[in-house]
Amino acid sequence: MIEKAFTAAVAGASGYAGGEIVRLLQQHPRLNAVILTAHSNAGEKVAGHFPHLDLDPEMTFVDTTVENLIGHDVVILGLPHGQSGPIASQVREQSPDTLVVDLGADFRLVDPAAWEEFYGSPHAGTWTYGMPELLRATGTAQRQQLAHAREIAVPGCNASAVTFALMPLVARGLIDPITLGAVLAVGYSGAGRSPKPHLLLSEAAAGAVPYSAGGQHRHIPEIIQNLAAASGQEADGFRLTFTPVLVPMSRGIQAVVTAKLADSQTPSAAITRAFHDAYADEPFIRLLGEGAFPNTASAAGANSVLLGWDVDEKSGTVTVMAALDNLVKGTAGAAIQSINLALGLPEGTGLSGDGLRP
Amino acid sequence: MIEKAFTAAVAGASGYAGGEIVRLLQQHPRLNAVILTAHSNAGEKVAGHFPHLDLDPEMTFVDTTVENLIGHDVVILGLPHGQSGPIASQVREQSPDTLVVDLGADFRLVDPAAWEEFYGSPHAGTWTYGMPELLRATGTAQRQQLAHAREIAVPGCNASAVTFALMPLVARGLIDPITLGAVLAVGYSGAGRSPKPHLLLSEAAAGAVPYSAGGQHRHIPEIIQNLAAASGQEADGFRLTFTPVLVPMSRGIQAVVTAKLADSQTPSAAITRAFHDAYADEPFIRLLGEGAFPNTASAAGANSVLLGWDVDEKSGTVTVMAALDNLVKGTAGAAIQSINLALGLPEGTGLSGDGLRP
Amino acid sequence: MIEKAFTAAVAGASGYAGGEIVRLLQQHPRLNAVILTAHSNAGEKVAGHFPHLDLDPEMTFVDTTVENLIGHDVVILGLPHGQSGPIASQVREQSPDTLVVDLGADFRLVDPAAWEEFYGSPHAGTWTYGMPELLRATGTAQRQQLAHAREIAVPGCNASAVTFALMPLVARGLIDPITLGAVLAVGYSGAGRSPKPHLLLSEAAAGAVPYSAGGQHRHIPEIIQNLAAASGQEADGFRLTFTPVLVPMSRGIQAVVTAKLADSQTPSAAITRAFHDAYADEPFIRLLGEGAFPNTASAAGANSVLLGWDVDEKSGTVTVMAALDNLVKGTAGAAIQSINLALGLPEGTGLSGDGLRP
Amino acid sequence: MIEKAFTAAVAGASGYAGGEIVRLLQQHPRLNAVILTAHSNAGEKVAGHFPHLDLDPEMTFVDTTVENLIGHDVVILGLPHGQSGPIASQVREQSPDTLVVDLGADFRLVDPAAWEEFYGSPHAGTWTYGMPELLRATGTAQRQQLAHAREIAVPGCNASAVTFALMPLVARGLIDPITLGAVLAVGYSGAGRSPKPHLLLSEAAAGAVPYSAGGQHRHIPEIIQNLAAASGQEADGFRLTFTPVLVPMSRGIQAVVTAKLADSQTPSAAITRAFHDAYADEPFIRLLGEGAFPNTASAAGANSVLLGWDVDEKSGTVTVMAALDNLVKGTAGAAIQSINLALGLPEGTGLSGDGLRP
Repeated sequence: MIEKAFTAAVAGASGYAGGEIVRLLQQHPRLNAVILTAHSNAGEKVAGHFPHLDLDPEMTFVDTTVENLIGHDVVILGLPHGQSGPIASQVREQSPDTLVVDLGADFRLVDPAAWEEFYGSPHAGTWTYGMPELLRATGTAQRQQLAHAREIAVPGCNASAVTFALMPLVARGLIDPITLGAVLAVGYSGAGRSPKPHLLLSEAAAGAVPYSAGGQHRHIPEIIQNLAAASGQEADGFRLTFTPVLVPMSRGIQAVVTAKLADSQTPSAAITRAFHDAYADEPFIRLLGEGAFPNTASAAGANSVLLGWDVDEKSGTVTVMAALDNLVKGTAGAAIQSINLALGLPEGTGLSGDGLRP
Repeated sequence: MIEKAFTAAVAGASGYAGGEIVRLLQQHPRLNAVILTAHSNAGEKVAGHFPHLDLDPEMTFVDTTVENLIGHDVVILGLPHGQSGPIASQVREQSPDTLVVDLGADFRLVDPAAWEEFYGSPHAGTWTYGMPELLRATGTAQRQQLAHAREIAVPGCNASAVTFALMPLVARGLIDPITLGAVLAVGYSGAGRSPKPHLLLSEAAAGAVPYSAGGQHRHIPEIIQNLAAASGQEADGFRLTFTPVLVPMSRGIQAVVTAKLADSQTPSAAITRAFHDAYADEPFIRLLGEGAFPNTASAAGANSVLLGWDVDEKSGTVTVMAALDNLVKGTAGAAIQSINLALGLPEGTGLSGDGLRP
Repeated sequence: MIEKAFTAAVAGASGYAGGEIVRLLQQHPRLNAVILTAHSNAGEKVAGHFPHLDLDPEMTFVDTTVENLIGHDVVILGLPHGQSGPIASQVREQSPDTLVVDLGADFRLVDPAAWEEFYGSPHAGTWTYGMPELLRATGTAQRQQLAHAREIAVPGCNASAVTFALMPLVARGLIDPITLGAVLAVGYSGAGRSPKPHLLLSEAAAGAVPYSAGGQHRHIPEIIQNLAAASGQEADGFRLTFTPVLVPMSRGIQAVVTAKLADSQTPSAAITRAFHDAYADEPFIRLLGEGAFPNTASAAGANSVLLGWDVDEKSGTVTVMAALDNLVKGTAGAAIQSINLALGLPEGTGLSGDGLRP
Repeated sequence: MIEKAFTAAVAGASGYAGGEIVRLLQQHPRLNAVILTAHSNAGEKVAGHFPHLDLDPEMTFVDTTVENLIGHDVVILGLPHGQSGPIASQVREQSPDTLVVDLGADFRLVDPAAWEEFYGSPHAGTWTYGMPELLRATGTAQRQQLAHAREIAVPGCNASAVTFALMPLVARGLIDPITLGAVLAVGYSGAGRSPKPHLLLSEAAAGAVPYSAGGQHRHIPEIIQNLAAASGQEADGFRLTFTPVLVPMSRGIQAVVTAKLADSQTPSAAITRAFHDAYADEPFIRLLGEGAFPNTASAAGANSVLLGWDVDEKSGTVTVMAALDNLVKGTAGAAIQSINLALGLPEGTGLSGDGLRP
């Protein structure tokens, strides 16, 4: 095998997000996962946790210590909320050039008050937001910021889906920002790998069940932050109702996002144009078009977001449907895409827009 | 076996709705399905189509003719849209006392213009709407109307779910009627039994996919008609954005319904009170309460609708979540409930609020 | 509601088997579940654990103590293996007339050595085996034994499926008893309600995975005991290879059972005749016939076992396929059926052969 | 994009097997799918049929004619049984050097009588069998034969799973060849993309159902042919009972294969040694070991077969469990693997042993 140019250490690698990082790096031609750390699974064989991967059978999870993480080109943190801050500081101290990437929420939000309200702990700081496609009304383009980043906060999976759906429309002022609604059909891998009764197949296989309704979901301030950046408006000019619904599939997010049109006479062609103008050149955003319905199954395993939209003239609303794989474009794929930019590699290196279906 | 008092003929009995009528009548102590008709399946054994039912192995589907349908206490029509009208007229002519019940849409709408807009054919008429729980701002209570009905139009399954979610709130003026949004996670049995590629398990098992977005769904005017009745408002004072999403389960509808509060200071207790006042005595509506999340799996096979709700103070919205089994409380169970009333039987005869889970 | 004649206490009622007992007793006209006990869930509301049931919202799990269990007509034990023995003795001591029914394995086996080999603990004893359909080469018919039983051991779910498949053939000497093979596709509810990683929907939704292969499954000696009873042969004259495979469904067992024909010239009509002779009058065994394929979905929620079979002349084997719902005919339904017999009620009281499908 | 060295035409590309060929060629660095033909879908956009792939939106299915197929390095036929023969002859005539690969059954069997018995039509001939791992008791190794092949018959998916499970044991005489039994839990994609009622998610989501029991399945003679080749025995010395069971998943085959040990004293270490000796160097066979249970979910999308085994001393049998993805290692991946050999490329080019999970 050809020597890969860059090495990575992955902390908290035994969960679903970490496992997906490992899967994607298996097929990455330049970046190699050489250290995988875990907490309670430290000392165990990686192959036993990821029986779907064709791994070195001797590779073992090591403890999540700074010593184990330093000395690599990239450190990827897949830790519970609140744990990335301290370990990132120590890594940075001993290893000033390392690219540190957080899959968790710790460094996503700009506003400390929003962080504290939704996460209930002190704000750790703000890193470069790992969404190359993010529209920005002012300042340096996000893709360019990522090219120089040494610290990247990977977006939340639900936040990504809703942001992709609404961003071009708020950027162009086509929708009323206080009328935003999002209901997401989400797969169970988004709920993590720790066993809890309601996540059992027996409980979950035949039902759809909402959670975190009523303004409680932590991705709400992140979405509003993105929409504010895209439109140049203040965050407090947005109102978003957000309800995720667990449905019986392993992967996938189907975000159904609605808003009142700012001008009820807006023709659907203007909506279509906004999407094309914003995304036509994006390598990982697939525009299915007006009246088309994306299926999350089409995004399984792919670093793609699929978009369709429809205007309802009678109610004066637009509905945008965004489908993506929560573990790929929603997490690990987005991380690799941003890492590629930060390492100076072509953005799509090791990533594929092809899903696994049926 | 004790002789059952009443007999029923079921037209179009080989589909999912018809099959569910047969299942429920198997356990009904007073009403017996004695004639089952079908179109292309006429002449075939019923047991072969419904291998889950412990049926007389010799029972056979007969042709859907008036001759086969008349002479029974109840005729239940499970026919494609547009076919119920002609056959109902003929049945009525020859059999003036028969109770005729339409599982289809033909007689649900009051407004001919709404019918023609959404169904594209001449309006057949309006029958008594088979939702005993329907709130009515004026006139005779729906339950009482059903007690004297000879012609009953069974509600649409999605329309039922959204109506149950919103009715108490519009009746009390708690929400702004032009801000209604509904996204429904729906199971595949709602798409019927005719084989089409996108309904195959291979296509559908791992994905969530919307359809009929953008104001096209035919249940929209039906929902608005119900809300208008409940509130005493005109139908054109309502705006509803409605998007169903097929998710990988056989049965069930999870309606996530949102609206702006009419007064953004409305306390959540007022919402809770509205639901209790409207539904506390309803035998088949289960109020899980504020902050509770109904699971469609809990309604499988039951004639129940489960309701939870949450107020989002920041966005000034209320979210109501309604779960039911599309084939039972959404169709066949609602039909039996209304038939019981019309036959003078206790409303819950042969119906159960217990679901099959896990 | 009419007063039910008999009362039951259910110990260990918060698991899947206990929940199914509660569901079935909800629809039983004569037997009422008045006490539900639990271990870690004691003190919690029953309705919270069984959101699918239309229960008294105030009913609470109490501790699993003898005091809570005595004083009822029936005590049903849904406890982990090894715990039924002691509590049964105490109940019996204080309440000599109570019918005690064990859903667990403790009292199923006749042979202490077989118990100790497979369960690794001292044998607690042998109770009347709760399978009314059991064929017996000699002695009193099982149904008649159950009519006089005060202690009933409910069969294992997998054991039931395989026994129903093979019993008529071994009874008539049609198959070679040392060539028995069974592979079972089983749903996840059979693995219980305690959360473990491999039972998560995310892990389980897209795969089929065997377990307990290689002669380790505890239902093997139970099946052989039944076949020995049916044939009048010694248990050590049987050889059974048994492999269960978890497949992504909540309920159901599909047992595919094969054996060499004792005489390779046996016509398939002889197989068919054996099934008809054994089962034609059984209320809960449905013979689909030669060349027919039962679907576990058809048995969901029903107290039915569905049987099909096929002879392969080239390999000289017969394949029998038995489908049932592991929680109903496999556990709780079989328990009610036996309880009905022991209480002198019609055997099918409160039970239905109708499944919930689609 | 770098110019790929070789071009392929795929006939019958709109089905699941064809779609998987297209997916795999998307990631193949040397072989390019330039022509896709279809029957009823000719003229339609490929992207509409394969929304999961990031394809040229203008690419269109063309008619399945010889003119459209010739002129490429490789022609891959994904046609219904019986159609490959005539078109292959015409392609060969006009294009003598083209590598022709049949995904169907037409050219798999050596014995015309076996073909006619199971397929009911005249035998078209025998091509080189596309299983590089096939053991051969005599003659040139299969991998070497493939290196010189111009005509390759890709194995059947079920046949592959059972062959991988049994081949090392029959080659070494460890099992009694007249006692072979195989039960396979199979996903619905194996039943194809043509819509039929029993393949609907509503019908299939909650159940397991066998089909083609009793010696009728067409993969039986193919498996026996492989075992005969591996052992050097005659085909009529084998007896195999074979029953597939459809279970609710899209992809995957879990073959549970049993046999009597030739010598009941055979230690399990001898079984383990046989697997290691046969497969240790195989790039796409993963030996999980004695007592390990492969999960089909771990093989999803991968060109891998995963194997576990267990000896049951009491019954004197061995159980082997083989899991693979029916569309990859079972069909399209096996095809690419063989094509690579025939084109002189490294065998694993463009193939991955990593699955997509959860």
